[in-house]
Amino acid sequence: MIPPFDDTYFMKQALVEASLAARKGEVPVGAVIVCRNRIIARAHNQTELLNDPTAHAEILAITSAAHTIGSKYLTNCALYVTVEPCAMCAGAIGWSHLSTLVYGSADEKRGFRQYAPHALHPKTIVKSGVLEKECTDIMTDFFRKLR
Amino acid sequence: MIPPFDDTYFMKQALVEASLAARKGEVPVGAVIVCRNRIIARAHNQTELLNDPTAHAEILAITSAAHTIGSKYLTNCALYVTVEPCAMCAGAIGWSHLSTLVYGSADEKRGFRQYAPHALHPKTIVKSGVLEKECTDIMTDFFRKLR
Repeated sequence: MIPPFDDTYFMKQALVEASLAARKGEVPVGAVIVCRNRIIARAHNQTELLNDPTAHAEILAITSAAHTIGSKYLTNCALYVTVEPCAMCAGAIGWSHLSTLVYGSADEKRGFRQYAPHALHPKTIVKSGVLEKECTDIMTDFFRKLR
Repeated sequence: MIPPFDDTYFMKQALVEASLAARKGEVPVGAVIVCRNRIIARAHNQTELLNDPTAHAEILAITSAAHTIGSKYLTNCALYVTVEPCAMCAGAIGWSHLSTLVYGSADEKRGFRQYAPHALHPKTIVKSGVLEKECTDIMTDFFRKLR
């Protein structure tokens, strides 16, 4: 069966990235960027490995996607990320003009809805709650094991 | 004469970076990061050259400084940047726990004070208006020549 290219499919791919982060001891956030049903970039949080506070999944994915398509504007692309982006990442999504942002679980502590609610481009469509339980569980498991 | 290591001195260094950006056709924003009176990172906006919407002077400087000191926290460091940071960069400054942010000219259109006023770490000290005229002039000149 050909897998259906829907929000669930692409969020599962972002979850694969989040799992890779968890295995490396990174806070498990994963992201993919999709253009016309093709994944053009995939990334996971690497702040520890790269020793870089800016190395969030979304930032790495946006940089990679811009290189792939040869434009700093990702106007016809969608970003799938397992957790609600922070202010920094929302700002980056804003600059990149991504057409759609889809996130899994909400981040009540550091999410952009609280810290930078107008940082996205006004035309960017936002969807939330896709595979919310899976996206929340991988974070909860990670922090439970740390304690 | 030994140059005095004060805010004006370090902002002049950030302005040198902004000039480098202007010469390359980049929006002229420059930044330096200072730790115990030593410049440990310097960068200028490279969004066009790198084809990367995240390649603002502040992001590049933070990544570079974190590599230099081997820590993703820049707790005892100050960031000097010629223009008020945007929401993305304010978020990055927040994650990096920079102790001090000094900027030259305000950015009423895209500055963090409007878009992400609480994105900085609560302990970060913010100073503004250092060499404000020089920092504003280099931006105004750049955009005048573009038209």
